[in-house]
Amino acid sequence: MIKIAICAPGKRLEREHADAVQDRFAGRDDVELVFHRQCFERHGHFAGDDATRLAALLECANDDSVDAVWFAAGGYGSNRIAADALAGMGDAARGKTWLGYSDTGYLLAALYRTRTGVPVHGPMVADIGRPNGEHAIDRAVGFLCGDTAGVEAEIDDRATAAFNLTTLAMLCGTDLMPDLSGHVVLIEEVSEHLYAIDRLLFHVSHHLRGIAGLRLGRISDIPENDRPFGQSEEEIVRYWCAREDIPYLGFADIGHDAANKIVPFGLAAAASRA
Amino acid sequence: MIKIAICAPGKRLEREHADAVQDRFAGRDDVELVFHRQCFERHGHFAGDDATRLAALLECANDDSVDAVWFAAGGYGSNRIAADALAGMGDAARGKTWLGYSDTGYLLAALYRTRTGVPVHGPMVADIGRPNGEHAIDRAVGFLCGDTAGVEAEIDDRATAAFNLTTLAMLCGTDLMPDLSGHVVLIEEVSEHLYAIDRLLFHVSHHLRGIAGLRLGRISDIPENDRPFGQSEEEIVRYWCAREDIPYLGFADIGHDAANKIVPFGLAAAASRA
Repeated sequence: MIKIAICAPGKRLEREHADAVQDRFAGRDDVELVFHRQCFERHGHFAGDDATRLAALLECANDDSVDAVWFAAGGYGSNRIAADALAGMGDAARGKTWLGYSDTGYLLAALYRTRTGVPVHGPMVADIGRPNGEHAIDRAVGFLCGDTAGVEAEIDDRATAAFNLTTLAMLCGTDLMPDLSGHVVLIEEVSEHLYAIDRLLFHVSHHLRGIAGLRLGRISDIPENDRPFGQSEEEIVRYWCAREDIPYLGFADIGHDAANKIVPFGLAAAASRA
Repeated sequence: MIKIAICAPGKRLEREHADAVQDRFAGRDDVELVFHRQCFERHGHFAGDDATRLAALLECANDDSVDAVWFAAGGYGSNRIAADALAGMGDAARGKTWLGYSDTGYLLAALYRTRTGVPVHGPMVADIGRPNGEHAIDRAVGFLCGDTAGVEAEIDDRATAAFNLTTLAMLCGTDLMPDLSGHVVLIEEVSEHLYAIDRLLFHVSHHLRGIAGLRLGRISDIPENDRPFGQSEEEIVRYWCAREDIPYLGFADIGHDAANKIVPFGLAAAASRA
């Protein structure tokens, strides 16, 4: 029996999304989903204030009976508690798998930096609300139960990491940022203008000098601007990769959608054995 | 006679704005405004492609007869040409004053880092289009002609710098970023959600450890979110300053508006003597 604990380091989870995911695995005797009550708290923008979100994350992290911590949703806010969370984690945290993306990338980064268990970039509980969201949920729970079919297809034997582009930009140079030299780095983004994508890549490409290469996930829901930018998202990535001598390695099958594939941080083979 | 050269490192300038500013100083025999034709070019998002914008900036920078370079507008794009611009500047550039803000902060940063003349944060030509925009224009041209009445009132005898918050966040850790240790740093922002302001301050406050203090300019046109953030912009700045041991020094009279005051980089007294 795989026990999966769910908490919300940023945005709160809708009850109906929790219920839908709980119902989907109710008949299974190989997996148990435990939703921390904090998932449904409210405090302004967040699922409870910083202390509440931190305490819930640490309860999940330090529970010996829990195999994996699954982040409920992104939004914003995991960066505010990440440093304290890592400081409060004990031995029980080091054996765990951690699954999320988008804003929870701050936690994945800090966990990877400190080699605390296996951080994994992939679907969250709230993705059940997307069109075909059940595919994302099945892929996520399947991976946590040992099924690697949902792992991104082009991941090879090089160390890998995946991030939302804005999250990665805000991580660069901070105490949460892992050393990604030699890594293949996958990026994705949602709801940003192309000029903002260009600006983020200016910043990120400076900081990523020395990585093995960059792969471009989906850049979705790009708002229309008052004038066309003049370059596609792939042209933008190729431009900044060329400027900073970073190999551009093509597209990646990740994004803010139900097709978002699984990307274990580090060596995928080691993650699957974990 | 003060000769002011105007070019557009990012967004193009509207003809009507150039005409309005030109007309305003037409009768003056102490100041001459020279608009580079590149101000009115178009290339996708930009006032001409990178090579065109770079060439125009270097023509202004390397012209011995020019006293000051005034940036026409912000938008986005000066970061793409800043490194090449600095590399192409000769002795004539070192005697100049450079005036702009918002996106042109990438250039102000790089100029300050390399101690190339006196970078100054203040109104641009396109500000004539704002309500009461003529006040901003008079303040800008007045400063370039030696009138310090428009300098931000609380600037003291400590080295100072001012930035748009997003621009500063994207600068952090790059080759364009000056050493701001010991500086009072002023920030302002426009059209960003409060959660994005919080996220930017997470990033920037990490990178600004060791500055003399942070002052908060206007955060204007904050879009309404689907839920209230729960903290004001000042509470956000106080929070991150406290976390990173940065003194919070109160409000600053800068912003994306016609009241935007003048902030010379470095020591204001030295700038006024330049």
